[in-house]
Amino acid sequence: MSSAEEKFETKEGTPSSEDERYIHKVSVPPKQKLFQEIKSGVKETFFPDDPLRSFKDQTNRRKFILGIRAVFPILEWGRDYNISKFRGDVIAGLTIASLCIPQDIGYAKLANLPPEYGLYSSFVPPLIYALMGSSRDIAIGPVAVVSLLLGAMLQTEIDSATNAEEYRRLVFTATFFAGITQTTLGVLRLGFLIDFLSHAAIVGFMGGAAITIALQQLKGFLGIKNFTKKTDIISVMQSVFGTMQHGWNWQTIVIAATFLCFLLLAKFIGKRNKKLFWVPAIAPLISVVLSTLLVYLTRADKQGVAIVKHIKKGINPPSVKDLYFSDQHLLKGLKIGAVAGMVALTEAVAIGRTFAAMKDYQIDGNKEMVAMGVMNVVGSMTSCYVATGSFSRSAVNYMAGCQTAVSNIVMSLVVVLTLAFITPLFKYTPNAILSAIIINAVINLVDLHAAKLIWKIDKFDFVACMGAFLGVIFFSVEMGLLIAVSISFAKILLQVTRPRTALLGKIPRTTVYRNIHQYPEATKVPGVLIVRVDSAIYFSNSNYIKERILRWLVDEEELTKESYQNKIQFLIVEMSPVTDIDTSGIHALEELNGSLKKREIQLILANPGPVVIHKLHASEFADLIGQDHIFLTVADAVSSCSPKIMNDV
Amino acid sequence: MSSAEEKFETKEGTPSSEDERYIHKVSVPPKQKLFQEIKSGVKETFFPDDPLRSFKDQTNRRKFILGIRAVFPILEWGRDYNISKFRGDVIAGLTIASLCIPQDIGYAKLANLPPEYGLYSSFVPPLIYALMGSSRDIAIGPVAVVSLLLGAMLQTEIDSATNAEEYRRLVFTATFFAGITQTTLGVLRLGFLIDFLSHAAIVGFMGGAAITIALQQLKGFLGIKNFTKKTDIISVMQSVFGTMQHGWNWQTIVIAATFLCFLLLAKFIGKRNKKLFWVPAIAPLISVVLSTLLVYLTRADKQGVAIVKHIKKGINPPSVKDLYFSDQHLLKGLKIGAVAGMVALTEAVAIGRTFAAMKDYQIDGNKEMVAMGVMNVVGSMTSCYVATGSFSRSAVNYMAGCQTAVSNIVMSLVVVLTLAFITPLFKYTPNAILSAIIINAVINLVDLHAAKLIWKIDKFDFVACMGAFLGVIFFSVEMGLLIAVSISFAKILLQVTRPRTALLGKIPRTTVYRNIHQYPEATKVPGVLIVRVDSAIYFSNSNYIKERILRWLVDEEELTKESYQNKIQFLIVEMSPVTDIDTSGIHALEELNGSLKKREIQLILANPGPVVIHKLHASEFADLIGQDHIFLTVADAVSSCSPKIMNDV
Repeated sequence: MSSAEEKFETKEGTPSSEDERYIHKVSVPPKQKLFQEIKSGVKETFFPDDPLRSFKDQTNRRKFILGIRAVFPILEWGRDYNISKFRGDVIAGLTIASLCIPQDIGYAKLANLPPEYGLYSSFVPPLIYALMGSSRDIAIGPVAVVSLLLGAMLQTEIDSATNAEEYRRLVFTATFFAGITQTTLGVLRLGFLIDFLSHAAIVGFMGGAAITIALQQLKGFLGIKNFTKKTDIISVMQSVFGTMQHGWNWQTIVIAATFLCFLLLAKFIGKRNKKLFWVPAIAPLISVVLSTLLVYLTRADKQGVAIVKHIKKGINPPSVKDLYFSDQHLLKGLKIGAVAGMVALTEAVAIGRTFAAMKDYQIDGNKEMVAMGVMNVVGSMTSCYVATGSFSRSAVNYMAGCQTAVSNIVMSLVVVLTLAFITPLFKYTPNAILSAIIINAVINLVDLHAAKLIWKIDKFDFVACMGAFLGVIFFSVEMGLLIAVSISFAKILLQVTRPRTALLGKIPRTTVYRNIHQYPEATKVPGVLIVRVDSAIYFSNSNYIKERILRWLVDEEELTKESYQNKIQFLIVEMSPVTDIDTSGIHALEELNGSLKKREIQLILANPGPVVIHKLHASEFADLIGQDHIFLTVADAVSSCSPKIMNDV
Repeated sequence: MSSAEEKFETKEGTPSSEDERYIHKVSVPPKQKLFQEIKSGVKETFFPDDPLRSFKDQTNRRKFILGIRAVFPILEWGRDYNISKFRGDVIAGLTIASLCIPQDIGYAKLANLPPEYGLYSSFVPPLIYALMGSSRDIAIGPVAVVSLLLGAMLQTEIDSATNAEEYRRLVFTATFFAGITQTTLGVLRLGFLIDFLSHAAIVGFMGGAAITIALQQLKGFLGIKNFTKKTDIISVMQSVFGTMQHGWNWQTIVIAATFLCFLLLAKFIGKRNKKLFWVPAIAPLISVVLSTLLVYLTRADKQGVAIVKHIKKGINPPSVKDLYFSDQHLLKGLKIGAVAGMVALTEAVAIGRTFAAMKDYQIDGNKEMVAMGVMNVVGSMTSCYVATGSFSRSAVNYMAGCQTAVSNIVMSLVVVLTLAFITPLFKYTPNAILSAIIINAVINLVDLHAAKLIWKIDKFDFVACMGAFLGVIFFSVEMGLLIAVSISFAKILLQVTRPRTALLGKIPRTTVYRNIHQYPEATKVPGVLIVRVDSAIYFSNSNYIKERILRWLVDEEELTKESYQNKIQFLIVEMSPVTDIDTSGIHALEELNGSLKKREIQLILANPGPVVIHKLHASEFADLIGQDHIFLTVADAVSSCSPKIMNDV
């Protein structure tokens, strides 16, 4: 029975023998010139989005204008800007400003900086981003995770308490290099590097960081004075319970707990009714105002309730001269900045993509990176620390109906007014309220739903997720990050060293051959073993693939021996999924062919792709096994073996 | 016209509607238990060769015996050992001994060690390997590349000239850790790690190392006294030509050149007539004997011909107490040992595999690593430095008709007799002759033919090859190695971030859909875009794949607009090559589906594999696009769209 023949009995009638020969042949596509080949490779790697498409066939003047617009998207969308959009942006900008002011003050503390630096970082970076960024919904400013990461890494280098001035200078240096890293990645179009942090690892890392941040807030929440500088859960718990007898302050706890309940209630209301999104958005500012008034009126600070005391009035002082370019600080700043910059990017790009997908517009990842980078470089010169897109504020921005990056400008202006006039009013704001606000903000980062889904879909991903999570909680933020990256890489390496292979069988009444593990009804062809290799054959897996195919063969031969079936005489390798092969791969095929020859088994290839068939010819392997042993489909290959097996029976 | 219908008009007649439904469905294989899933994953990763297969269904006593035999393969093959095999082994052993003695003396110099250490390393390690190794053809001992690598890396830590004692101790420490590294890799079954050095990178690295070694020999060859300690070609050339006026010794050059010609002639004879393989094999020893006599008789050493002078008599002294376990030396030894151990392994495993393939027996890579590791650990305690399999001597061993590892034992005994009695006779051996022997040995490592083939097959591989080659020659051995590893990794990363995708078309008169780039005769289906994704969809490429598919769509829509064709209404993603998908991949599909919905295009999947279909169900993505939009083949998928498109026209 020949399966291939069946196929040709179509409505068009029986094909002539010429057609049949034509159809069976595996085409070798026209050979590309070397330069062409390299060019298309480079293009696909670095410019998959074809960013120069719109520049094609334009005059030089027009190209220049398009180039300027590409760098400053505001010139693009600014042309259609109108009053109705402006209204949306103003409302959104005011909402996120009310949310960001208390958050900024708290986040600055996570980075071991005085509170005003959080506000500084919500002034300059959003303005720069509004000019250069392409996301319409992202809200720029300091974020919890990056603040914590930066604080934890810098603290191990310089003690912020005893050496505040030097510490601050190192912060700016790190911020500068974070910006340089981001810009470089964008300009060199290496944006894909951040894709190496898997979704699962990010979920775990964010969850762990959120819990670590929340635990850090117990200091402010419980009014503890002597708190550990470490971030792992064990040290923190020792700090917390070691001070229980005489270190907690009940007035502080009452204020913190009350307002935390208020914030959670506001969040609950916002979740129940999407129209009331502004309730949780302004709740933090209301808490700050109420609690400040309360402390001022009751003079609770005299009862041991810690207060902010002093926020420097006035806008950002310049900090260009504070950047450290001496030997040792340069290296530290570079290292810490690069890590913080990458993490910040990961967060920003994820946010940008999420909202772009919701409103269905395109974001150019590499362009975003350049915008982020420039904004942080400028930030480092104007007393800002690393800013990026904030999950919580971006969501509020989106729900409040922002239309463009103008909402960031509005927010920035509110922040600058705050810095210029209102900061003295924060004197009596209790630290406890900032802690409550941060706890309320970060618990959203613990995404149990996502973790559950990861568990359901991919167990290995779950291991990566939990590894990052536990690494952050039990060791340190950096350790968690390292674990996340390592597990992500391990997965990639596993993928390329241990690709899958499958035995194929014929699905009844079709000429389709499928994995017999998936389709138990598929039947093997007697005397023929059909193996599909599910990956490009490269040096990292060529040896494994060769040995795996031989093992399939040995297993099958044992089976046929037991059941007195035909001896295997043909091994068909289905190569559809084999997109590429390198010199090691060709070697492996040659060795496989040698082993098969010794066992008197003929190697047959089915459907090699364009790149592979090229290389099979270039290496003369095609001649080695015989051109007539390469077929378009498995069905054709099987039909070519069938008559021979008949004869042997 | 419905393609799927065609397929059912087979010899078996028109199928009933029940059959049709049955055939179209994509099977979801029975869900594996979590434990089962993890178990099979671990097994495939670490035990792809199923090493415990023979232990199945055996009594405990039998299992124990099998276990002992697995560790000491000599107990396995020793049982069938007979006198005819012994004859082959003795001849081969004597031949490789005559080859190894002069080589060892020269290689020890590459490692900056006194000559006797080369001989020591040809005594103990081959004995251990004979007990534990599973290759029958490999010849164990010091090799040129590892000697050079070890010498170069250790020299940067401790100067061997001024601090010989400390240097020697660090050599043993590094050897110890090389052995530990090898054993660990074998025991943890991480043998696949050495597969990460690609064939191309090895060819380049070996070629570069060979040229570097040959250049180093110019010192002995030209009789130069003050020679650079650096290994890069520029320093060496400066050394060579800087001393041309008064540093060269013509008597030395005459001796060296004469015997090099003799060696090359012998090699030429051996190549022309395979039966005369022993001519090049014993030529080095003959050269040593003749040149030693010549120098002794003419007292050429008084004319400035450098001679060996002194080789310590007697067998290996113990060196357990010389191992350094103090803080700083431990780390240096560990680092250098790990690198040298990995490189030694790469060479040994490549040799083992090559000869195993030629004689068609199996080699267990992980077991080999344990054998190599134990042999080097024992070696480090008996004054040996890192030993491994030698390309040139293994080839001679093979051609001399070795049958088992007994040839290594024979060689080892000859070496020990040499150490015990003959070393004083080497006193007048000119260094020049050792240089000639090494030059003659290493030029074989420059594999121009392989480099040419690599160029023909894969340009990227060629870049890796040349990178390693030039790195070794112009910078240092370590730098070359680093370049080789980096380029190999870059290739893997590119593979997983930028997988290929292809547009499919229908090949005339079949129901087969193939890449229209490879098969220009394939025709697109109006209103339907068929894209094949050629890789597992993971976090590292999910975003790229999503955007690439959308770009295919945009390009296609522009084309249809120009030619007034049907608007695209269906996007079929052929998933046959997609062997796995993770949570990021599912997200990307969801986003793709969202974008398509906005454009009123229906997403259809064809032939998802067992793992993928599972995850599509687990994540409920299958329900999102509709179960009836997942088909077994592209043909089925197309036939389901066709009637709808007809209606719209």
